[in-house]
Order: sequence, then structure tokens, then C-alpha cells
Amino acid sequence: MSRYLGIDIGGTNVRVAVVDEMGEIIEEIKRPSLATEGPEIVLNNIVDMINNLEHFKDCLGIGIGIPGPVDTERGCVSLATNLKGFTGYPIVDFFKNEFKLPVYMDNDANVAGLAEALVGSGKGKRVVYYFTHSTGIGGALVVDGHVVSGNKGYAGEVGNIVIDRSRPRLSDVNSLNAGAVENEASGSAIVRKAQKLIDPEITSGYQVFKLYEEGNEAAKEIIDNMSYDMGMMLSCIAHVCDPHVFVVGGGVTKSRDLYWDKMIAAYQDLVHPQMRDTEFVMASLEEPGVIGAAMLCYSKEEL
Amino acid sequence: MSRYLGIDIGGTNVRVAVVDEMGEIIEEIKRPSLATEGPEIVLNNIVDMINNLEHFKDCLGIGIGIPGPVDTERGCVSLATNLKGFTGYPIVDFFKNEFKLPVYMDNDANVAGLAEALVGSGKGKRVVYYFTHSTGIGGALVVDGHVVSGNKGYAGEVGNIVIDRSRPRLSDVNSLNAGAVENEASGSAIVRKAQKLIDPEITSGYQVFKLYEEGNEAAKEIIDNMSYDMGMMLSCIAHVCDPHVFVVGGGVTKSRDLYWDKMIAAYQDLVHPQMRDTEFVMASLEEPGVIGAAMLCYSKEEL
Repeated sequence: MSRYLGIDIGGTNVRVAVVDEMGEIIEEIKRPSLATEGPEIVLNNIVDMINNLEHFKDCLGIGIGIPGPVDTERGCVSLATNLKGFTGYPIVDFFKNEFKLPVYMDNDANVAGLAEALVGSGKGKRVVYYFTHSTGIGGALVVDGHVVSGNKGYAGEVGNIVIDRSRPRLSDVNSLNAGAVENEASGSAIVRKAQKLIDPEITSGYQVFKLYEEGNEAAKEIIDNMSYDMGMMLSCIAHVCDPHVFVVGGGVTKSRDLYWDKMIAAYQDLVHPQMRDTEFVMASLEEPGVIGAAMLCYSKEEL
Repeated sequence: MSRYLGIDIGGTNVRVAVVDEMGEIIEEIKRPSLATEGPEIVLNNIVDMINNLEHFKDCLGIGIGIPGPVDTERGCVSLATNLKGFTGYPIVDFFKNEFKLPVYMDNDANVAGLAEALVGSGKGKRVVYYFTHSTGIGGALVVDGHVVSGNKGYAGEVGNIVIDRSRPRLSDVNSLNAGAVENEASGSAIVRKAQKLIDPEITSGYQVFKLYEEGNEAAKEIIDNMSYDMGMMLSCIAHVCDPHVFVVGGGVTKSRDLYWDKMIAAYQDLVHPQMRDTEFVMASLEEPGVIGAAMLCYSKEEL
């Protein structure tokens, strides 16, 4: 069975793993990513990790997942926000030169979506839309086992979709659109709204869900609006690609019992009747990042 | 060079043509589609047309374009609105039985988009988003030369994307969402708004554009709002698939000199900065329907 090397570069940690074509991790090393030290130190640290993998010699290719939109043609990050100095840095070429293997790279949400589509909850479905409902909101479109990255790697930047143009622009928070779903329905949006409406000491979405369960009216309003706003975003996505399944990951889904029914009802209300039976399932992989990174090689080989 | 048969079934006319893999029409027949007569008469009429094509014997497969969302797995139309009795009718199986050739079918906008992506204005681009700005608004996502049809064929039904949830629902017009872009920015939406704000005798979008040129303030407001609403829809699409190019067809584009700059400026204002240079080009094929239908075979063969 073919094996590939996956590299999952995050703002805090980096993982390298040898993964087989079924998505099983054979061997893995994890270290701090040293994200503030600049590309050379970060990448040489990764090279050293790879050289410590006993089974790297079996790998047919290298796949990389990284935060931020990825220019897949040039093999660099279009805009790196939590990896200092990485914007435009030729990461793919670096690993090609170092190891003389095929190297592929894509955005972390895209590789996680690919992993879920190939060996996770979306397995066997032709059009899989994966999204994370977390501190932020991001997505990935996977068609016939291939990630659609787009022109500059911005496919999946669904957090910037406007779900209500009448909302205020939050220039003090970020540069997203006024009414962007990430500023209205993400984990951090819930916290921000709860701090304003309920208690400035609130620090987590979990607390807001707990207040909701306890019957707090303001918390109910925040969660209900969030559910509707998510449904609006999902209807936009579905009218573009009509997925066979939505695979959902991210921390906010821990409270899914308290909002999925409303989110899905809003989605169903905002799509054509024949689109209402689209499935929503939880992401199922523990480490979709490093598995999906490795599977990028498998996915590209197939073409 | 390989040749394929394209069938373009419309509510008024049907075209059959032998098309080569470069998208050149070798031979074509056009007849009324007899859309109210039911599937058997419509389809037997098409069989007769095909049997009158001298070069059909060279064709390696049959591709069909048809109005309405297409269930590509079952080979039928999910919801036929202007072809009586066609909802769920096994069209693909009918032609397979009749001619013992591979048969593929997709929605008319999807096949037009495929034609533009393979041999028209989107040629050579990996992710092409085609849309028609016409009486209605519809689109097609083509990735690496393959149409993304989706679960029930509703990919591309972008006319139902909500660009402003505060607009009234037009239950007397259709069942689209309140604030659906098709009800706010299509050719028929422009006419409807102009009838209300300017003159109930207005019957075409062209008249509204003419009034705009003459300095009519209400016409200016209608066109400017339409341009912004289109930009909003396009930003939603781009955040899902980040196309390398938007290819635009449809009757409203005849007046593109009067609104494209504003539409594109709105789009650019509503996307991440790195997405602002996405190209917008006019569709270039005279008969994308029948060419794209034939190219479906080419596209499927490749996989």
C-alpha cells in the first residue's frame, strides 16, 4: 500500500506523519512550530523531524497543510497571518529541493476537508462540502476526491460571505465584510455578542450555550440568530455546488445538540425543496490535518 | 479527431449536432421541440432528427443539455418547468437503449458553461465560473474541464442566493427566497422595478438602460442597485470556489458598458484584496448549448 508524508504546519505546533493511502497514520512526530522565527528556522526544524521518521524512506510524495490561502500553482501562502515571513515564501520548492520528491500544498481547512472526503465522514460522496465552525469559519469544496483551491487559494474562505448586509462593519475586529458570517456566527462572534449583551466576563462559546440551556433570553437570541445566519451561509454554498453532504468540524459543534436543528431548518427554508435532504454529518477524523496533507499526494496522483 | 452528438433541448426548439472535440459543429439540425406534447413525442422527434444526420455514425457518445436541474446519477430532470411530463423521466436510459452509446445529460446552463470553459472564453483556466445574466440568473461551476452538478443538479442555481434578506418575498412572482438575486437583479427584475418606479408600460431591460443613459434618476437607481446586488452574488460565489475567471453570458450583458464597471467594483469591494484581480470576460460561443452538450461526452471520457 502506498505511503505519503503529511506535514501539518500550525501557528503553535507542527506535525509530520507517514500516512498510508487508507488514511492510517503509520508514524508521527509533533513539535512546536516556532512560528515567529521565520521560514528558514521553521522549515529546517521540519526537515529534521522528517529525517527522524523511520518510514519516511517509503513515502512517494510530500503533502503540506498550512493556515491561510495557498497559491497552489506557485506553491506558497498568499497571505500568512500567523506564520511570520511566510507570505510568498516558496515552501513547495524548498521541500522539492530538499527531498527530490513530488510536493503539494494546500490550506489547512482544504486538506482537512480532503481527509474527511476521502477517508472520513464524506467517504464515497462525490461533492463534499467540509466546514469548520470554530473561532473562525472556513470551508473546503472537494469534488470527486480533489480539493477545489481556486485562483489564489481563496475557495473555502466562506467566513467572508455576507449573510446580512445591514449588520455593522467591525473594523476594530478584522477586515471582513459588514455582515460577514464569521463576524456574526463564529465562536468568537458568539462570545463578543454575549460580552455585550450578557456579561463582559464571558470568555467562551461554551458559557453562552450553558446560559442558553439555563433559559437565559439573551443567550437564546444570540444562539438562535447564529443558527439562522449559519443556515444562510450554507444555502449560499449549496446554490453554488449542491454538495451531497456537509461535513462539519470545529469546536462550536461540541454544542451541536443545542443549535444544529435550527441551523439545518434555516438551511432547508432557504434552498429549493429538492435540496432539503442534503446530509449534515460530524467530521470524524482525530487528525484530519496531517492525514489530509498526506492525501494531497494521493489525490494529485489520481488525476 | 473524435466526434460526439450534442442535443440541446429547449422549451421552444431542439438542436442536434455532430461536434468535434475542438467544439466545431460539423452538422446540425434544428426543429421545434414540441415541449407540450410529452416525453415520448419529444424524444422520438429527436431520434428522427438524429437519424437524419449524415455524420452521426462517427459519434462516440451522446450529450444532452436540458432546462432545469438534472439528477446526473439517475439521468433525469429533477424538476422540469417548461417541458411537460419530463420530471423524473429516464431520458438518458431512453437514448442509451435507442442508440447503444454512452449518454450523458446535464442542465443547459451547466453545458453552456462547460462549452465556454473548454473551447470558449474560459479555455485554459482551471476553475471557470460561468453565469447568465438574462431574464433569470443561473450559473455553472467547471473545474478542470468537468461540470460540478452536485447532489440533485442544483449546483449553479445561484439565482436563489440571498443578497439582501430585508427585501420582500415575491410570492406572486415565484417561490425564490426573499432577497434572492434573481428577483432583484435579473432582466425581469429590472423590468418589474421600472414598471413600478417609472412607467407600467416598460417591457424590456433595454428600455431601462436607455432611460439610464438619458439621465433618468429612477433608472439610475435601479441599475446601480442591480450592479451592487450582482457584485454581492459574485462575492458569495468567489468565496466558495475562487474562480480564475467569470465568464458572463445572457441578454442583459448587451448593456454591459452601462453596468459592468459598477458590478465589478462591488465584487472587488466584497472580497479579500488578493481576489480582486479575478477576470470577468464575455461568453464567446454562438451556440454553447449544443456544443457543451456534445462536450459532456469528451469531459466524462477524460476522467
